[in-house]
Amino acid sequence: MLRIILADAELELIPDTLYGHPSVRSYARRRGRPPERLLLDSSFVHSALRGLPQGERRGRPDLVHVFLLVCLDSILSLQGGLEALVHTRNDEAIFISPQTRLPKNYNRFLGLMETLFERGVVPSEENPLVRLERNMSLEKLLGPLSGTNVTLAEDAAIADPISLFEDVGREVNCIVGGFPHGSFLSPVRDLAAREFSLWKGPLKVWTVASELTTSYKRFIDSGGGG
Amino acid sequence: MLRIILADAELELIPDTLYGHPSVRSYARRRGRPPERLLLDSSFVHSALRGLPQGERRGRPDLVHVFLLVCLDSILSLQGGLEALVHTRNDEAIFISPQTRLPKNYNRFLGLMETLFERGVVPSEENPLVRLERNMSLEKLLGPLSGTNVTLAEDAAIADPISLFEDVGREVNCIVGGFPHGSFLSPVRDLAAREFSLWKGPLKVWTVASELTTSYKRFIDSGGGG
Repeated sequence: MLRIILADAELELIPDTLYGHPSVRSYARRRGRPPERLLLDSSFVHSALRGLPQGERRGRPDLVHVFLLVCLDSILSLQGGLEALVHTRNDEAIFISPQTRLPKNYNRFLGLMETLFERGVVPSEENPLVRLERNMSLEKLLGPLSGTNVTLAEDAAIADPISLFEDVGREVNCIVGGFPHGSFLSPVRDLAAREFSLWKGPLKVWTVASELTTSYKRFIDSGGGG
Repeated sequence: MLRIILADAELELIPDTLYGHPSVRSYARRRGRPPERLLLDSSFVHSALRGLPQGERRGRPDLVHVFLLVCLDSILSLQGGLEALVHTRNDEAIFISPQTRLPKNYNRFLGLMETLFERGVVPSEENPLVRLERNMSLEKLLGPLSGTNVTLAEDAAIADPISLFEDVGREVNCIVGGFPHGSFLSPVRDLAAREFSLWKGPLKVWTVASELTTSYKRFIDSGGGG
């Protein structure tokens, strides 16, 4: 099993200090929901983010959306070989069943995530395809997972993921930063046994997902690791 | 060079027969633009699509968006080895420079495409990163391209793309259907020398893009075809 953990993802509800900001109030009117039930999205409330600590990297549900589409629709996932998890900057963990048919449309995805933050589970308690758990640090999330933790780090040595999988075996938990730029907030260096890079510069989270899922599939198809 | 051509993509402006439809009028009000300057998006004007021929597959700019993100942000594209092209159901061709920094946010992508349909080029004539040409059938689009045309077809025999690239060489034009389900509208059988499939069932366009770009990169990195 390959697990990809999107860590410190910039996915959060609008912080209460911003409820009174004009761009937030106009966005809430347009969406027809109060600010406390809306996800922070830098495209819609860009000017409000300037007043927020680390505002230049926050409010990126779009990254989570494309990351999850690439993971869940990968051939590896269709074969049952992938688990994608999201850990947020506020230590929420989101568990997504591989059977989930995620909305392709971004605005519907926002609606789904907003319902998830409200109810903790979607579509329903009886059919909990997506679950949210609070107070889940990256350390706590990784704790019960079997296999080797590996971090994708921009400044680490470049390696072919297939060689890495051959080294560490079939049970791998790859930690990928869920933010547009900057560093991990969580202590990934302490949590991962290995780190590597795929390219000499920064990559988008969906590029990393694409490289990891296709490489792991080749590794398994060639009988690697077992 | 690997070219991926998204063919018969469900990307179009709202057809004039729908201008009077209530869902279209309310969407136009919300967007603050007249219907003739808006892209057809099934998520926003779903009920209007019922009255349209082939309405169940039309209005999917979201597919084009994620496809282009996966292509343009791939390592292969960063290495200069990929060209991504879009051909639409109405025989428009969209040429995208690999240097284009596409909006990650879907709503901004819609705005960019709408400006492209209006002006034929974005961001400007001086800096034509994205160009639209009309009256460009798939045949006409493929005509001047060097290399072998290959179609990704759901009902063709499954092949590893690396083996296929080893067979046909480094100059490949892969034709991928840019619609959610159904068949090509263009006569792809007559235009492609080969066809193959990546998996036993239907795949999303971004999954195909992910498989093709990463496989072609492995093919080139291992010295294949040259």
